[in-house]
Amino acid sequence: MPTFVQILDFIGTFAFAISGIRLASAKRFDWFGAYVVGLVTAIGGGTIRDVLLDVTPGWMTNPIYLICTGLALIWVILFGKYLIHLHNTFFIFDSIGLALFTVVGVGKSVALGYPFWVAIIMGSITGAAGGVIRDVFINEIPLIFRKEIYAMACVFGGVVYWGCHLLAMDTVLTQIISGSSVFVTRILAVKYQICLPILKGEEEPDI
Amino acid sequence: MPTFVQILDFIGTFAFAISGIRLASAKRFDWFGAYVVGLVTAIGGGTIRDVLLDVTPGWMTNPIYLICTGLALIWVILFGKYLIHLHNTFFIFDSIGLALFTVVGVGKSVALGYPFWVAIIMGSITGAAGGVIRDVFINEIPLIFRKEIYAMACVFGGVVYWGCHLLAMDTVLTQIISGSSVFVTRILAVKYQICLPILKGEEEPDI
Amino acid sequence: MPTFVQILDFIGTFAFAISGIRLASAKRFDWFGAYVVGLVTAIGGGTIRDVLLDVTPGWMTNPIYLICTGLALIWVILFGKYLIHLHNTFFIFDSIGLALFTVVGVGKSVALGYPFWVAIIMGSITGAAGGVIRDVFINEIPLIFRKEIYAMACVFGGVVYWGCHLLAMDTVLTQIISGSSVFVTRILAVKYQICLPILKGEEEPDI
Repeated sequence: MPTFVQILDFIGTFAFAISGIRLASAKRFDWFGAYVVGLVTAIGGGTIRDVLLDVTPGWMTNPIYLICTGLALIWVILFGKYLIHLHNTFFIFDSIGLALFTVVGVGKSVALGYPFWVAIIMGSITGAAGGVIRDVFINEIPLIFRKEIYAMACVFGGVVYWGCHLLAMDTVLTQIISGSSVFVTRILAVKYQICLPILKGEEEPDI
Repeated sequence: MPTFVQILDFIGTFAFAISGIRLASAKRFDWFGAYVVGLVTAIGGGTIRDVLLDVTPGWMTNPIYLICTGLALIWVILFGKYLIHLHNTFFIFDSIGLALFTVVGVGKSVALGYPFWVAIIMGSITGAAGGVIRDVFINEIPLIFRKEIYAMACVFGGVVYWGCHLLAMDTVLTQIISGSSVFVTRILAVKYQICLPILKGEEEPDI
Repeated sequence: MPTFVQILDFIGTFAFAISGIRLASAKRFDWFGAYVVGLVTAIGGGTIRDVLLDVTPGWMTNPIYLICTGLALIWVILFGKYLIHLHNTFFIFDSIGLALFTVVGVGKSVALGYPFWVAIIMGSITGAAGGVIRDVFINEIPLIFRKEIYAMACVFGGVVYWGCHLLAMDTVLTQIISGSSVFVTRILAVKYQICLPILKGEEEPDI
């Protein structure tokens, strides 16, 4: 029987993979290219985190992420043209993934004994770095650097995790509160189109 | 005296480096930039594999890859304009490199005790990831996501390796059969322009 | 009390972060995006080096680099439009950073027992790879592959380090001479617009 967290993990991985595969299909990638872009979107953040923490990436010990990405690819091949109607569903799934991945990243770093500012960065990398690699592969400027609040929701969730930890809360409760704050921040940011200010600078710096 | 495998390794590295240097020259990179792009094309895949497997990358213990890339750069500087006539030769060399790198990647992972689905991915990364970094550096969408079968030949070779292993074949024979299957797949794919299907999706997904 | 090297490290980090933030602002990144680009410009090279050397990246044990990048972001937000007048100052700061990062990278590799050709590459990665990631993130072809001598100054500084080491010089003296040679090379290269030759090749290679 999968646990509740494993089910959330599967949903999040599926949503992240779908986001990569859809953007790959807009660039006319072939099936293999779409699979790879979906996979790096789903596991890229966690892989960078694990390389930095010097532990074995999760997908190298459990094939579920590869299988999940394969199912996402089949889904898009079969139902691609109806996906646009599921936009809101996937947005919710993607936000679930973002919340869960952040909590997993923060928790893993804390468990390894790293200070909280490292854990917050690792949570953000877990949640958002896969999307950055995705955008580099499809040759676009990473969305999260320009659009509404995304990675900042991870940072906020990490800070909340820290706060709960300082208050000596139970670990499971801490993870639920932290994950919920990521999820709610992301939902509110999109609903009310909350953006960070654009950085205005010179037109063409020379460095 | 270099062994047969070392000679193949040198030929493959040389061909991979040449492919990076030629694409860099089309973008008007300087000599240094061309050298770096050639080098990451040749050693990038193996480096990512070794970082994931948590072992020291091969080029950090043996300077042959740096020297080989340097020779490739000198070759392009001296004979660049005649290279187009050697197109078929370099295609054969590149396919030799792809086959050998795949077998080395699969074999190294299996030797470290990883399951076969990890080994197949590591073989594909060894063979194809250098070309992905190359294309990111020259600011193009990676070729292998869109063109005829390339990384899929690595995946196929990894599966063949697995099959031979299940049949309890001798290691050297396994490697020869696996490498040949990569080589032949790649040659046939280009000769008959065998492509994977393009993924058709919505025009502009919004995630 | 910070040491002289720590002050130089802070100046170099600040200058590298500023270069990333300014380029991000020209692409209309938001504050978060600009911070991330500034950060990877400052710490990206050292992080790649430490992953390859299999040691913990420096920014995971000392938050100074994150704080320094934050100060750089505030600086650009407040004084962005005047920065163009400080062009020469930042060029000097950037060259200090390049020199220091190179020496740190070479020194760390030598201390870990790697041969000098590895140390020279690690010095160059420390000095120049952050700028490559920066340019990939803003979706431009990396500047250092096309413009006047930059990473070659790191290579030269690494070779000088090696020469001093062969002459059995004192470590501190070796570092000063090596760092100065990077700094002077970079200053002269820009002042006299010294470039490496462009690699001329076929117009459109097919591999």
